[in-house]
Amino acid sequence: MNAPAAVSGAVSGAKMRSLAETLFERMRAETTAEDGVGITRECYGEGEAAALKLVRETAEEFGLKYSVDRAANAIVSLPDDDLSKPGLILGSHMDSVPHGGNFDGGAGVIAGLLTMVRLGAERRQGGTPVRLLALRGEESAYYGRANIGSRALFGLLTSADLDAKRQGTGRTLREALASVKADVAAIEQGARLIPLNFASAYLELHIEQGPVMVARELPTAIVTGVRGNLRHRRVVCRGEAGHSGTVPRWLRHDAVFAVSDLLMRLDEHWNRLLERGIDLVVTCGVMGTDRERQAISRIPGEVYFSFEVRSQSYETLEGFYELFRSECRAVSDQRHVTFEFDERVYTEPARMDEAIINRLKKLSDQFGLATELIPSGAGHDSAVFANAGIPSGMIFVRNCNGSHNPDESMTIDDFMQGVDLMYAFAATGATA
Amino acid sequence: MNAPAAVSGAVSGAKMRSLAETLFERMRAETTAEDGVGITRECYGEGEAAALKLVRETAEEFGLKYSVDRAANAIVSLPDDDLSKPGLILGSHMDSVPHGGNFDGGAGVIAGLLTMVRLGAERRQGGTPVRLLALRGEESAYYGRANIGSRALFGLLTSADLDAKRQGTGRTLREALASVKADVAAIEQGARLIPLNFASAYLELHIEQGPVMVARELPTAIVTGVRGNLRHRRVVCRGEAGHSGTVPRWLRHDAVFAVSDLLMRLDEHWNRLLERGIDLVVTCGVMGTDRERQAISRIPGEVYFSFEVRSQSYETLEGFYELFRSECRAVSDQRHVTFEFDERVYTEPARMDEAIINRLKKLSDQFGLATELIPSGAGHDSAVFANAGIPSGMIFVRNCNGSHNPDESMTIDDFMQGVDLMYAFAATGATA
Repeated sequence: MNAPAAVSGAVSGAKMRSLAETLFERMRAETTAEDGVGITRECYGEGEAAALKLVRETAEEFGLKYSVDRAANAIVSLPDDDLSKPGLILGSHMDSVPHGGNFDGGAGVIAGLLTMVRLGAERRQGGTPVRLLALRGEESAYYGRANIGSRALFGLLTSADLDAKRQGTGRTLREALASVKADVAAIEQGARLIPLNFASAYLELHIEQGPVMVARELPTAIVTGVRGNLRHRRVVCRGEAGHSGTVPRWLRHDAVFAVSDLLMRLDEHWNRLLERGIDLVVTCGVMGTDRERQAISRIPGEVYFSFEVRSQSYETLEGFYELFRSECRAVSDQRHVTFEFDERVYTEPARMDEAIINRLKKLSDQFGLATELIPSGAGHDSAVFANAGIPSGMIFVRNCNGSHNPDESMTIDDFMQGVDLMYAFAATGATA
Repeated sequence: MNAPAAVSGAVSGAKMRSLAETLFERMRAETTAEDGVGITRECYGEGEAAALKLVRETAEEFGLKYSVDRAANAIVSLPDDDLSKPGLILGSHMDSVPHGGNFDGGAGVIAGLLTMVRLGAERRQGGTPVRLLALRGEESAYYGRANIGSRALFGLLTSADLDAKRQGTGRTLREALASVKADVAAIEQGARLIPLNFASAYLELHIEQGPVMVARELPTAIVTGVRGNLRHRRVVCRGEAGHSGTVPRWLRHDAVFAVSDLLMRLDEHWNRLLERGIDLVVTCGVMGTDRERQAISRIPGEVYFSFEVRSQSYETLEGFYELFRSECRAVSDQRHVTFEFDERVYTEPARMDEAIINRLKKLSDQFGLATELIPSGAGHDSAVFANAGIPSGMIFVRNCNGSHNPDESMTIDDFMQGVDLMYAFAATGATA
């Protein structure tokens, strides 16, 4: 990519790239998991703190200001920014899953930091302030709650969230937040901790966690929205167990055949909806016969399974959920089984801002980038900002092998292309 | 049922019924499981021995001879029978699964015993000898091998069978057989332990272990054959795990959807074959996602499942198995998964003898019984006899709640109807 002279400023591309490499190397070295397998940056724990220390040192080395908000997230700003005016927030998260990769979250924070370094070096005056927000606690791996750092800012954590205990140690999220000096009392009251005029827009760079960009050969992409989901953790299909040799087909109440039938009906609906251009993914990630009673020669009387539908559209989620329940009823009738559902869990989808999408697309086109618009299937802090009414956007960078594992693989070429796009967006005005 | 005067003989129906009730009560009392839940007659163990003791005491009380064959099965014969001529063998098994019911096996032995008592009381002279064979070790629950007692008689046990260890204690089948003084050396050599001229025909009464007779309101039925089966204990479908939100349908290798697709294809074939009158049942009794790696938000990369097809026809088994493998290939292509198969296990089907079926049917019709011909889905010792070339037949008695559980439920009315049919068959010549 050849960035226009107007935005290439005082820092050469080679210097930025070299800084990026150094930062990724240091962050990897300083947050490698104890057993050496992958990266562990536990939220409100050691790894996250070590990564934030690196951000602080780098910011201060380049003459930038480092501060901490009331939820203990880190802010990096230009020297002349008193944080009083609404700004463009370049955000991502500092934490990782246990034994995760170096890039999920980390790439976005480093991209924002590089952008801040470059803006700082150019001694840019006036215009919309640009700030990096390095969020904590985005991953749900530790407390079963995602986006803790961003939700805390908008008063969206409940007492139940704060009571959640860390898997393994039993430490509560309340204790974890207190340990990093977050304003737990305000968080528990549901107070908004981010000033109303802090953010005029939010932009997050993140690795893609799916295979689409690799398959389509896209180094960068612009995100249209973050899929929400509707889930049941556990649905139980009950039929009637019986001897596999002695019960003829017409007298069977086979739970495995019933659930298979259900899934194929859903698969057909899914396929048809995709043909109509509707954004949708459907997953049954957990499924099994009753381990206590299953046998090769026993007609399965019970099968449990999970159900999840994801879409950027609330209407699609609700519509497909209705299809799911309706097909359960049809299968019940036809295959003599019943379905029992646990609590339905809803996670809101979020739309990225049209104006931001359009500006990012226009910049991409100017630079001749092969950038397409794709949805984000995974959740992101950007969804919290967008649903809080702050115009938000996301840049995805190509990544192999998914995320949440040590094999995340992003090239520095692809990353720098994403950083250049972020910089161009930040340098040419935030939301105009 | 009104049995013809010619066969009602010296023992009244009321006396037979009363004896049946007493025998069932005593057998239940003497073989109740230690924890009081159901019946446990472990093969070559206590419960089986207690039940055989009851058979012996009853036989001797009624002036019948009790002996033991070289595989430690029990023979009850008339006083004038020196076992030198081919006879009609009334057989069933003495053992039960742990915590099973009183009737699976026990009903057949008591039916044979009642028939012998009645024939003995009539002091019948000449004709085909009739004998009761109370077999041991029919259930596979203890040593993972079925029909041990009957297979031993025909030299069909292998050294590997004898090495099989009892679940829980580790006692080998060899040790178990030795403990009841079976001729283990001969068994291991594959010697035929039953004289060639011992059995001219084999007739077994057994409770139905499926729901067909209850559904069709048949107190008794005549068995056409014993279904064999082809099995895989474990097939693994491998796709590719992935984030449930980020991988679109076209890039998925979803193992759960693939296996569901496979099962619905097989279900369709099954349904079509049934419409053509083909005897077939298909079961996937065990199925599950990988418990170590499954998650609601993870596309399942692996599913294991068992496969079983049963039919009275070898050609149907092989034909359906080919369909199974061919549909696995089709699903592999279309859903980007692979299938891995463990060893294919084959259990031979058996046809009941046409002449015996016809005679039983004719007798039923004479008595005005609502008797139909149905297949046996479960395995029986009759299949071992039939496949050894001995013309064999089976009478099924209606039973609620399946078998292998304490809730087996057979009425004494239905049972006596089956006994009367057995008696009529035995008293009027064995195979003519």
